[in-house]
Formats: sequence, structure tokens, C-alpha cells
Amino acid sequence: MNNSSPKPAGKLTIRPAIEDDVKLILQFINELGEYEKLSHKVVATEEKLRKTLFKQKMAEVIIGEFKGEPVGFALFFHNYSTFLGQAGIYLEDLYIKPEMRGRGFGKSILKHLAKLALERDCGRFEWACLDWNDPAIGFYKSLGAEPQNEWTVYRITGETLRKMAEV
Amino acid sequence: MNNSSPKPAGKLTIRPAIEDDVKLILQFINELGEYEKLSHKVVATEEKLRKTLFKQKMAEVIIGEFKGEPVGFALFFHNYSTFLGQAGIYLEDLYIKPEMRGRGFGKSILKHLAKLALERDCGRFEWACLDWNDPAIGFYKSLGAEPQNEWTVYRITGETLRKMAEV
Repeated sequence: MNNSSPKPAGKLTIRPAIEDDVKLILQFINELGEYEKLSHKVVATEEKLRKTLFKQKMAEVIIGEFKGEPVGFALFFHNYSTFLGQAGIYLEDLYIKPEMRGRGFGKSILKHLAKLALERDCGRFEWACLDWNDPAIGFYKSLGAEPQNEWTVYRITGETLRKMAEV
Repeated sequence: MNNSSPKPAGKLTIRPAIEDDVKLILQFINELGEYEKLSHKVVATEEKLRKTLFKQKMAEVIIGEFKGEPVGFALFFHNYSTFLGQAGIYLEDLYIKPEMRGRGFGKSILKHLAKLALERDCGRFEWACLDWNDPAIGFYKSLGAEPQNEWTVYRITGETLRKMAEV
């Protein structure tokens, strides 16, 4: 997130990803991994993305285009609030190519998803942010987003998941 | 979560909820709200649950039964990891009636969902926990769950969501 030197704003075109986008989506995921210095954790492949996103439809992807060129993507899915008795939209990842930042494209995607949330009768729009990412946190708070500070996510994966599943 | 005075373990039967369970599910949600002293935040209704869970299928519910009587429930949905290129299971709520705690029923439900995660080729099993809930945190860590301490969820809801969605 870099809002320090605004570039000329442009119109971002947002469209749902199609199966032919898997190569592009994987490229964006790899770039995101590099940017977060977490490349070693990226094990996604075109085959996995094709299966989970376009056959099983486990999540949705939108592609942002500027002047006809893809400049970023977002992946989201529906979460759910028992207290509301209503689904929400959870934004898992939002990536804009570094050279395309500072043009308001990230905000365009957030607004697009907020609209989608209302269209789909969702009660919330949520995403997670790394605690050290101060520029992003400031930006999110300026939008009115409320940090759910009192909650921590617990994760079971790999061998621990297999062990837990044993009878 | 109360593991301090174990009661005789019993076999918990776990089944998917059906539409006729909406009254029961709402009752459990209300009890959960009371237990967490958050009753004022519960706005779910039978109608909303019927629509979002059984028509739109926005999340899945399982019911835990002991000696033929429902004693708790869990609500979960699929999340997604771009780095894995794979879905996960996210447990939104797990509730066991207070008088039925200490019998390992919560753990049975967690194991059931871990199994389901593997059956569905999911790479992760996750849930959130309140930071002050030390007994639960100790229990989760004993299972090998890793706290994602560096992440905070940001939420937009209500009027803020409507404002953000405006063009």
C-alpha cells in the first residue's frame, strides 16, 4: 500500500476471472509472495487453481485492468456470522502491481466488493492485515474499518491436521 | 470450554443440520450469545437462517447429539489460501450446552471437522478465539494449533458498508 505519491487517477475496469486467467492469477500470487517475502510458502500451481477456483468454485477472483492490461487481482469468499444470521464477504488477498500503485486502484476494488456485499445481502465486509503494516492500517481505518483486536485466528495444517483427523 | 472436571465420556453423534433444525440452531445461537454476554448483538432469526443456510447455502451446520438429544452445534464454511492454491475449513462457531461440557464433545467436533477438511482436500483448519479465553487457548495449543498473532481482521459493516459502496 503506497499512498504517499498519488499518480494520475485512472479508471480501473474490474471483471470476474475466467478459467483462462489461471496463469495470470498464479503470476500475481507469486508476485504477492515475493512482495511479502513469503515466496517459500507459495505452493499454488495452475492445476490447483484451475481445480479449486474454477471446478470446485471454492473462492472467487476478480481481475483489475487499466487501459486493457491486467494490473492486479483480488480473491474473496463468503464467510458467515451466526449472530447476524447472514453471510459476509471476506477478502483474502488484494494485489496491485507495484508500478501501478498510488492510483486508487486498491480502493476501487474495495468499493467494488463493498457493493457486491450489499447486492448479495451480506452484513459485513472483512479482511486481515499484518500488524506491522502501518500505511495499510491507516488507510483501512480512514475507510471506517474496525480492527477486531480481541480475536486471534488459530490454524492447524499439514501433519498436525492429519494427526487430528485420526480416529 | 471447561476441562477441569471431566465427566464420563460419551459418544457424540454428529450429523449435518437440515432445514427443520433452524429453530434449534437459533436457540443454540441465542445461548451462545448469552454465554458470551453478547445477546444484544444477536439479530439472527429463523427466517434469516432458513434463507442463508438452507436456500443460499452460505455456510454449513453440524449438530452434535448425545443419547438422541441435541447438545451442541458447529457452523463452518470454506475459506481459501492463495499461497496453497487450496481451500480450508473455517470454524465460525462451536457451542456445547454448558451442562454437557467436560465430556470431550468439543474435541469430537474439532476432530470431525479435521477429517472433513482432509476428505475435501483442504489444506488448513482454522478458527478464531477471544484473546482473554485462556482455557480455550491452552486447549487449542495442546492440539497443535498455531496462533496467527501477526494478523488482525478489519471489519466494515452497517452504515459504513453502505457508504463505502456508494459510487
